[in-house]
Amino acid sequence: MPTVRSALIIGSVAIDRVATPFAQSDRILGGAATYAAIAASYFAPTRLVGVVGSDFPPAFIRRLRRHGIDLAGLQTDTTGRTFYWSGRYREHFEGRDTLEVQLNVFEKFSPVLPDAYRDTPFVMLGNIQPSLQNHVIDQLAGKRKPFILADTFDLWIHTARPELDRLLKRLDLFVINEEESLLMTGERNLVLAGRHLRRMGPRTVVIKKGGHGSLLFHADGYFAVSAYPVTKLVDPTGAGDSYAGAMIGYLASVNRTDFAAMKKAVAYATAVSSLTVESFSVDRLSGAGRKAIDARYRELVKITRF
Amino acid sequence: MPTVRSALIIGSVAIDRVATPFAQSDRILGGAATYAAIAASYFAPTRLVGVVGSDFPPAFIRRLRRHGIDLAGLQTDTTGRTFYWSGRYREHFEGRDTLEVQLNVFEKFSPVLPDAYRDTPFVMLGNIQPSLQNHVIDQLAGKRKPFILADTFDLWIHTARPELDRLLKRLDLFVINEEESLLMTGERNLVLAGRHLRRMGPRTVVIKKGGHGSLLFHADGYFAVSAYPVTKLVDPTGAGDSYAGAMIGYLASVNRTDFAAMKKAVAYATAVSSLTVESFSVDRLSGAGRKAIDARYRELVKITRF
Repeated sequence: MPTVRSALIIGSVAIDRVATPFAQSDRILGGAATYAAIAASYFAPTRLVGVVGSDFPPAFIRRLRRHGIDLAGLQTDTTGRTFYWSGRYREHFEGRDTLEVQLNVFEKFSPVLPDAYRDTPFVMLGNIQPSLQNHVIDQLAGKRKPFILADTFDLWIHTARPELDRLLKRLDLFVINEEESLLMTGERNLVLAGRHLRRMGPRTVVIKKGGHGSLLFHADGYFAVSAYPVTKLVDPTGAGDSYAGAMIGYLASVNRTDFAAMKKAVAYATAVSSLTVESFSVDRLSGAGRKAIDARYRELVKITRF
Repeated sequence: MPTVRSALIIGSVAIDRVATPFAQSDRILGGAATYAAIAASYFAPTRLVGVVGSDFPPAFIRRLRRHGIDLAGLQTDTTGRTFYWSGRYREHFEGRDTLEVQLNVFEKFSPVLPDAYRDTPFVMLGNIQPSLQNHVIDQLAGKRKPFILADTFDLWIHTARPELDRLLKRLDLFVINEEESLLMTGERNLVLAGRHLRRMGPRTVVIKKGGHGSLLFHADGYFAVSAYPVTKLVDPTGAGDSYAGAMIGYLASVNRTDFAAMKKAVAYATAVSSLTVESFSVDRLSGAGRKAIDARYRELVKITRF
């Protein structure tokens, strides 16, 4: 059995309000770090660094604790309210519009790692400002060089490119979606975009294609996995975050980052994110349990083998 | 070793003129049956039923003969010219526009199977009018019930739906692209669309997603294969036809139509169509050779296994 290592997740913890073509949520638990940490917690001991405000419901804290997530790094800033995001998905889930953002306590958030977190060997930087992502890396001080995964999104590609480029050179794994991979590289072909991104720094790149699966670009080869066949799409929010969280959690659990381990991480991430989209918030992700994840992983093996 | 059976391909043989964002072709060999027959010929003895006009270049006939394709069913109608299609792909290959169509001898084409073709056990009906596709099935008279694959396209979905619905009930395998599968079923989810199409008649359905791979819906299960990672897209014309042709050819070559054989057929079809798009016309498809196809098939196994 491998020695299971811890995973550290840094990012937003939020209160969301989501409208889809079919339903409207209440104020629900959201945020990239929330989805990622719950996903990672299925595989490895998970630590979370983030900030919430005075209005953050105790039930949401309990939800995170129920997954055994170490919340020593979750600051409560009583001078303000929690980061709030409200959005609406367009018809057929083809794109989404942000209706309202209140950064609140997240506006002045500067992640500080508790001393006990500084040697975490597997780290995921959620899509906060690239300068803050770099700032987190500066605080890491383990004897072993940590494995660092980061996510980003189009806002930073447009507004913080130099910091993002600096970040890329420090990453082991960059996880990005299809459109953003093309935007960042200027390529029109995902295979070329993946190779291009690797030349910008990260040893390994994953391009997520939503309902069409994902692509892995690694020094030792290329891997393509189909999506799990979801038929009950309720809310795509958090799919990408739980995908990345599952990857870092799985890699920590096997304490390996070779090509074979990366492929399995991608497959687990596919399984986990397919659960996430079947409900609002983390309801399905949190309620599914490891058995449901393993069942989807095995199903994925079955439906892709020939 | 299985007994290799023959494959019969019915459809258009054409002269095309294609513009892409990067290049403009001359008058080149085209047509669904052309692409499909060359693809099938790599796997099984292949017969072609179609029509050409007085202007069809002998070099194009030689090209088909070089693949050993039986052309007893290829009529030459000297009263007119060959079906001509000219089209232009939009920027980034996002859709294409037809610039000119001259049906010519294809307008009054009614496929007549030579007697020797009537017992062909594996038949592909290219995307001609559904009434003509039904007319071909009426002429089949083998002792064994033939295995019938058909393709269609949006024009027939809009204009010949009753005949198309009648055809579906007579099919073993229906091959359709992503957009058309949604259009035909009114579904918004490809998994639901595939299941829906099976309920309309065909025992097996394949949904092609271009650069995102394809999905197979069979009585014994679901299968998803990723695309081969093409980086040199020259001209997508004929990709779907060569995909379907490779499927029927492979199935004929193993004389099996069970789920395992269907999965392999889909993988071979993926490999073959990835070659087709790397040149104008059938140049790359025809020039590649079986070894190149087998190499891509093995590569596909490698890049999708975890």
